[in-house]
Amino acid sequence: MRQAGRSLPEYRRLREGVSMLDSCRQPDLVVEITMQPVRRHGVDAAIFFSDIVVPLKAIGVDLDIKPGVGPVVASPLRRPADLDVLRSLEPGDVPYVAESVGRLVEELGPVPLIGFAGAPFTLASYLVEGGPSRNHEHTKALMYGDEATWHQLMERLSDIALAHLRVQVTAGASAVQLFDSWVGALPAADYERYVMPHSRRIFEGLADLGVPRIHFGVNTGELLGLMADAGADVVGVDYRVPLDVAASRVGPGKALQGNLDPAVTFAPWDAVADRTRQVLADAAELPGHVFNLGHGVLPATDPDVLSRIVDLVHGETAD
Amino acid sequence: MRQAGRSLPEYRRLREGVSMLDSCRQPDLVVEITMQPVRRHGVDAAIFFSDIVVPLKAIGVDLDIKPGVGPVVASPLRRPADLDVLRSLEPGDVPYVAESVGRLVEELGPVPLIGFAGAPFTLASYLVEGGPSRNHEHTKALMYGDEATWHQLMERLSDIALAHLRVQVTAGASAVQLFDSWVGALPAADYERYVMPHSRRIFEGLADLGVPRIHFGVNTGELLGLMADAGADVVGVDYRVPLDVAASRVGPGKALQGNLDPAVTFAPWDAVADRTRQVLADAAELPGHVFNLGHGVLPATDPDVLSRIVDLVHGETAD
Repeated sequence: MRQAGRSLPEYRRLREGVSMLDSCRQPDLVVEITMQPVRRHGVDAAIFFSDIVVPLKAIGVDLDIKPGVGPVVASPLRRPADLDVLRSLEPGDVPYVAESVGRLVEELGPVPLIGFAGAPFTLASYLVEGGPSRNHEHTKALMYGDEATWHQLMERLSDIALAHLRVQVTAGASAVQLFDSWVGALPAADYERYVMPHSRRIFEGLADLGVPRIHFGVNTGELLGLMADAGADVVGVDYRVPLDVAASRVGPGKALQGNLDPAVTFAPWDAVADRTRQVLADAAELPGHVFNLGHGVLPATDPDVLSRIVDLVHGETAD
Repeated sequence: MRQAGRSLPEYRRLREGVSMLDSCRQPDLVVEITMQPVRRHGVDAAIFFSDIVVPLKAIGVDLDIKPGVGPVVASPLRRPADLDVLRSLEPGDVPYVAESVGRLVEELGPVPLIGFAGAPFTLASYLVEGGPSRNHEHTKALMYGDEATWHQLMERLSDIALAHLRVQVTAGASAVQLFDSWVGALPAADYERYVMPHSRRIFEGLADLGVPRIHFGVNTGELLGLMADAGADVVGVDYRVPLDVAASRVGPGKALQGNLDPAVTFAPWDAVADRTRQVLADAAELPGHVFNLGHGVLPATDPDVLSRIVDLVHGETAD
């Protein structure tokens, strides 16, 4: 349940007067914010508190995260020369990441920590558009119109994502998740040509570390098989595709993660419980399943409902 | 190519100082705005200039269309008593619609006019959320939590959409399009239970008029077969699913509409032409195909690119 913090009053208190990027660079805050949903909900794993643009900021890209908007980039990258700003990420660029992970692993004890990074397509969209985008038109214009520059951009972003994930695993993270939030904006043939080779390089670059590799996006029903083939061990599924259907697209040997619709948590409890049980029923025959929402927690979610869902999945409630 | 006007300077000039809702209720403006893309691009059909909330405004729902936001409803509908505001739509509620359609049919001559209405799920989302919504959480809370009220809401909205479409066909429209812009936010099983019976009633209620019935949404890859089964003659396909794949989901006896990605129009012309030809190639074996974008025209689109696409589809360009 990533972004679970957004729904927690204790998170909002901690974040008062602290910008998103600053909060990601202060180990005291990162540790506390990462722990909050674990303590409150009793989930089986923690997800590292950070943002996908943290490594970009760390190498000097002029960007900020604007409240209510998202990442905003001062100078969008659209021409070959613009790529010069994307130098390699060295562990020394993100000392607060390794420190936070190390302290978290100690504090979490047996509860595993999931590290994460933004996938190159999603990072590229922010950099090329200059901010969040509904239609990704400048990103697609570059991708379709200047394939050489596109692949250079994706290679640099893949290197950064890979380095960022390796920092987290080296510091003690037990699993990694590669978030391609926007890649559902591509048809399968374009994903295969313009994105998949780069995501594959990231997953292959993690193989020696021996940690489970999760790949997640939304609106990716048409892409699930390819996202699995890119090298993920676990594929995240949004709520549009039932898990048993997703399993047939992903093929054997992969686990699935998902897929309760986060909007369902706004319904009366009986409906939430029905839907939660339906996810478990859809997953009953799967070789591996990580129960999760099919997307991030919505800010207005009642945290008590999330706790009840966790209890229900754990078999700790009678109803 | 709906919403083509947004990209036209002549449209923006006409709309200066006139609110969206006012412009939909002035036949002089409706006729001129509907004609503009036909004149400029030479497309094979006109789509009636209006907005899906026009019939709701006409029966007295307190709403407005805010520039840069979309429809905003003063009092969201979430309880059974709230539905009282949704009385039936009578032709006399929208005299400007029949008048505009009549004048357009005369002016268009052999070019057919496509009427349209918002489908009940999409209208319900605006009414329940109070405005545009990314996650439709209140809509889903009502749908999953109070099924009886949900179906009453959908029935009323279906009656309104059906009445609105009949007004347009009676006045001379040659085809109708039912827009379910947000229905891709539902898994197939929920679509089938909570939406499909209502959309079916609309399509069945149009059968005696003998006009082609188009059904359109985005993110509807999982729903294409059901949307066809609801009674559409033509199913709109967004750019995520290639037309030949969509055809296998929709089944025999249906035509497809689509599906060039509107973001592609921002790429250099060679890439636009390649993608346009790809759509035509995907559609080559289909029994029926209406070339179109896979979604509305983006406001910043270069209108000259749209004209070149039309020429290319018409076989009027050498390249």
